[in-house]
Amino acid sequence: MLNSENNEILTRVGPGTAMGGLFRQFWQPALLCEELPAPDCAPVRVRLMGENFVAFRDSSGKVGLLDAHCPHRLAELFFGRNEEGGLRCVYHGWKFSVTGELLDMPSEPAGSPMRCNPNIRAKAYPVHEAGGIVWAYLGPQESIPPLPQMEFMGLPAQNFYTSKCLMKCNYQQALEGSIDTAHLTFLHRSMAPMQKDVFNVGHLQEYGDADGAPRFFCEDTEYGMRISARRDGGEDTYYWRITQWLMPAAVLVPTAEGLVCRANLFIPIDDENCWWYRIRYHAGRPLSDDELAEYKGGGLDYAKLVPGTYIPEGNRANDYLMDRTLQKSGSFTGILSAQLQDLAVQESQGAIADRTKEHLGSSDTAIVKCRRRLIESAKRFATEGTIPAAVARADLYKRRAVAILLPKEMTADQAGTHPATLPSA
Amino acid sequence: MLNSENNEILTRVGPGTAMGGLFRQFWQPALLCEELPAPDCAPVRVRLMGENFVAFRDSSGKVGLLDAHCPHRLAELFFGRNEEGGLRCVYHGWKFSVTGELLDMPSEPAGSPMRCNPNIRAKAYPVHEAGGIVWAYLGPQESIPPLPQMEFMGLPAQNFYTSKCLMKCNYQQALEGSIDTAHLTFLHRSMAPMQKDVFNVGHLQEYGDADGAPRFFCEDTEYGMRISARRDGGEDTYYWRITQWLMPAAVLVPTAEGLVCRANLFIPIDDENCWWYRIRYHAGRPLSDDELAEYKGGGLDYAKLVPGTYIPEGNRANDYLMDRTLQKSGSFTGILSAQLQDLAVQESQGAIADRTKEHLGSSDTAIVKCRRRLIESAKRFATEGTIPAAVARADLYKRRAVAILLPKEMTADQAGTHPATLPSA
Amino acid sequence: MLNSENNEILTRVGPGTAMGGLFRQFWQPALLCEELPAPDCAPVRVRLMGENFVAFRDSSGKVGLLDAHCPHRLAELFFGRNEEGGLRCVYHGWKFSVTGELLDMPSEPAGSPMRCNPNIRAKAYPVHEAGGIVWAYLGPQESIPPLPQMEFMGLPAQNFYTSKCLMKCNYQQALEGSIDTAHLTFLHRSMAPMQKDVFNVGHLQEYGDADGAPRFFCEDTEYGMRISARRDGGEDTYYWRITQWLMPAAVLVPTAEGLVCRANLFIPIDDENCWWYRIRYHAGRPLSDDELAEYKGGGLDYAKLVPGTYIPEGNRANDYLMDRTLQKSGSFTGILSAQLQDLAVQESQGAIADRTKEHLGSSDTAIVKCRRRLIESAKRFATEGTIPAAVARADLYKRRAVAILLPKEMTADQAGTHPATLPSA
Repeated sequence: MLNSENNEILTRVGPGTAMGGLFRQFWQPALLCEELPAPDCAPVRVRLMGENFVAFRDSSGKVGLLDAHCPHRLAELFFGRNEEGGLRCVYHGWKFSVTGELLDMPSEPAGSPMRCNPNIRAKAYPVHEAGGIVWAYLGPQESIPPLPQMEFMGLPAQNFYTSKCLMKCNYQQALEGSIDTAHLTFLHRSMAPMQKDVFNVGHLQEYGDADGAPRFFCEDTEYGMRISARRDGGEDTYYWRITQWLMPAAVLVPTAEGLVCRANLFIPIDDENCWWYRIRYHAGRPLSDDELAEYKGGGLDYAKLVPGTYIPEGNRANDYLMDRTLQKSGSFTGILSAQLQDLAVQESQGAIADRTKEHLGSSDTAIVKCRRRLIESAKRFATEGTIPAAVARADLYKRRAVAILLPKEMTADQAGTHPATLPSA
Repeated sequence: MLNSENNEILTRVGPGTAMGGLFRQFWQPALLCEELPAPDCAPVRVRLMGENFVAFRDSSGKVGLLDAHCPHRLAELFFGRNEEGGLRCVYHGWKFSVTGELLDMPSEPAGSPMRCNPNIRAKAYPVHEAGGIVWAYLGPQESIPPLPQMEFMGLPAQNFYTSKCLMKCNYQQALEGSIDTAHLTFLHRSMAPMQKDVFNVGHLQEYGDADGAPRFFCEDTEYGMRISARRDGGEDTYYWRITQWLMPAAVLVPTAEGLVCRANLFIPIDDENCWWYRIRYHAGRPLSDDELAEYKGGGLDYAKLVPGTYIPEGNRANDYLMDRTLQKSGSFTGILSAQLQDLAVQESQGAIADRTKEHLGSSDTAIVKCRRRLIESAKRFATEGTIPAAVARADLYKRRAVAILLPKEMTADQAGTHPATLPSA
Repeated sequence: MLNSENNEILTRVGPGTAMGGLFRQFWQPALLCEELPAPDCAPVRVRLMGENFVAFRDSSGKVGLLDAHCPHRLAELFFGRNEEGGLRCVYHGWKFSVTGELLDMPSEPAGSPMRCNPNIRAKAYPVHEAGGIVWAYLGPQESIPPLPQMEFMGLPAQNFYTSKCLMKCNYQQALEGSIDTAHLTFLHRSMAPMQKDVFNVGHLQEYGDADGAPRFFCEDTEYGMRISARRDGGEDTYYWRITQWLMPAAVLVPTAEGLVCRANLFIPIDDENCWWYRIRYHAGRPLSDDELAEYKGGGLDYAKLVPGTYIPEGNRANDYLMDRTLQKSGSFTGILSAQLQDLAVQESQGAIADRTKEHLGSSDTAIVKCRRRLIESAKRFATEGTIPAAVARADLYKRRAVAILLPKEMTADQAGTHPATLPSA
């Protein structure tokens, strides 16, 4: 449990908050590249950490992320004309480039000093496209850090699939669920053939289903935390799941060696909503048509989305399409997709979980450490301006999660630093 | 009228409020028995006085009422597996009995001290099924009072019908309407054959319609208040309606001797919503198929409900399906069912009526006294811990309301204590 | 830009605010006459400046505007029976005249002193029907000013058309858009034959489209402000648009001489919503069937309304039915009707625009002056009780807006006081 004060520090991310300040030091996923499919396409509204933006792709294909409202009289640039190298507000025709430069101000007379006033510009943020995501840096512009080098961000386009899904709760509930390998045995338990191996661990799945009380070994690292969870395995082996937490809110979720890898990125929309970016990738081969069909269509792994949106069809208003009969017969929850299972419990903790009421166990070791790290980092940033070292060390993000059987004599440290936890060169 | 301070005391029932404290000393209707139709059926979300609970019926048929969230990491137990004598949280498998006892904690290693920590339990509340209702006692567990003995609670199942309906306003507006027999002459006036005798008073209905200015005689009692309202009757008689207010928020509404009786129970969901439990019963015979059909189908008496819910089809958003043409021709309000007529005016007073703006008359005598009694009881409970005597006196709730013609020479006291106001032995 | 304090003064209009006090000195549009189509028709809910009312037309055809709630127990009079010269509350039958007089109190015994207590009345407000609008005066009843004499209010019914439309933003954003002739060149630019001359300026439209940087000459007047905006015109002429701001929140929008005139009235519903009354009129002839068809049906000029309501079909939830393909080909905004174009940008400024973030130019001259005038008037009213002179000078409201070509040598003052700015005698 946390006291109220620390729960507030942990969960509030708006402008001026300690955690909001910390998060703004990191590159963050702002939207999917596919939301801006072509030069001069329609602009897109973006909301991150309680602030509103507009994203657009200009005539040359460059992406811009600007404050949502025109600096003139505050009309939304979303309604603007995206053409000829910039976004033009439809109210009075002011036009801005992807870097926020004022390109035209036709409502002022020729020769007016306002037309070339360098202080009049749209506030713009650095962006970078990688891994199917438009990344944005919302922090102080005088020191822009390098883009983190997560493995999927360097792969050919056919080797990864990226989508996102709205979660109606605080980001930290999503993050805690994602580093919590213990719930695998319950929430995602496979009970019938209809539930395929959604965690992509092949023949190892039986070990996850069988042992619900993994022993946790958590190692703080510069990039975040290495979470090594040991379950009963075969005769001479343990079943290890090595999860990687990449600060501030990304998680690599274990799959078996050689199979498709997975990453989760969480970004607060505001204090009570977040985006869940969900990535599947394989360093050695393109994703297959079957894999892509399952990811895109939704079902057992991904949640089905309302067409034309990133909002799941299953949601709290319809109890995630839970089928109580199925819960009696062939599913632990009665909820079909693994993603909806996570949404169900994590949103059910409340818009912002009241952590003063918890009773944590040893299965929550990673969660306790993750909170402490985030709270301390936020406090240190707020009071001393200390920026976590990982911000400047993009290469630290080259990590992998892995689910693996290892000889019993192997230590937790040996397991957590096993070669399988590093991407192939 | 009330001043603002007293209006606040009267209407606020959340944890920590004076009235909330008073209400929690009494057994309260938590949900309908029919909402938990069988052992191991689906759990049900319950919200009472601003607090959230989950109700379930275990494998042996016993009902449990627990705090809504698992004490582990606060996932809603609503999503749980109800099986083998308890409710199991789907997040990490913790399992609880109807009394809140921890039955299983599979996410902790065998031998962990947490697994048998007696402090880890779900907060559970005493419940009792009677009269089609699951009653709950939410007060201090060291002194659980007896269940009130309202007449319908002791009858065979075929002799009563119980349902509930959502009201989107503070409970006190509902209660005040229910003890306000004066509005019978107006809001519920029968104007055409299409409006049957919804108040079940037979040939006496003409007296209710004819005299809109009843004279009120209110007697404070240990159980609440006896409200005797006298209208012009026949030549040598008065038409008396004896209403019983059973503290804190139940009302027996008068019907003629020998006809089906009625009770209303109100329970705050929160400060701006309440449940209206509505009971029809006959001590001497089963309810007929015709009667049941009308109650269940809704129409002139009960409101029609949205199928699968306890939400009325007529509501503020559609002006209670009011028909202005019908209002001109054959109905005082243009609203068909008596229950919707009540909802229309009572919800229209506002989510919480601003009683500083009222102008009360002699027809509001019972309402003034009811408020005073509740406010004084709440204050005495909050300051001195005084619990109303009725809490411990379940037998006091054996009362009846009656609509009756009595000789003119009979005093109000004689009318109010007429043998017809007591259930037959 | 404004500082926060002045932005609050400018935009808050509820009871007890400075601007709310100022606005209540003026007659205001309360509802359309057509909403009360006949004697004894259904009452209508009205909300103005954060207060709730009920309007009804009595048996003799007179309109009444009363506080929404019955003074007895606060049921909404909206549900009342409108018959026999008054509105009767359906809860207990109290009945009131259009002037608020208590006509009947049948729930009190004959002879009760309450029945003739002159202090018991419904709070009623003076109303007057003119120009298709029920005007109301919500200020102190001891000094009721004359009704303003806007030109359309004195015309035969067939010479004008009045409707209204819900705007989900603060009234001041609507008002600022309406006096802002600069945006004509952009937001309403005609780009294709499909966009007809929605501003009704005939062959002059080309000048509005061509010059987006009009020069502003604003003259404070007793009635508000005369806003003369000069654009490039022909060889020897300028294209002038003379807009009239009639305090507090009415605007006459320029059209060419001899064509249909236009007026906009804005009235706050509350701080975050307002009604836009939109009037088309011609002093010299009835409106044609074609004109009426376009106004009523909605399309290029008026917004289409959800049938049976005054809510536009295009709204923020559907991005005003914006068509991005159309925006690329034949419309500046991709939004069809001029009214929806205004709604799109003005609602996009936020429920209450944060004017601390603006960057105003010379094209905003009229807006700066309008704000200053309103803020100063509100402050003077709040501190000294000063009522603007225009309140008592109904004849000052006899003005016209005009779009006109004038010789270059004509001064701004000559343009602004051109005979075309006065209605024909």
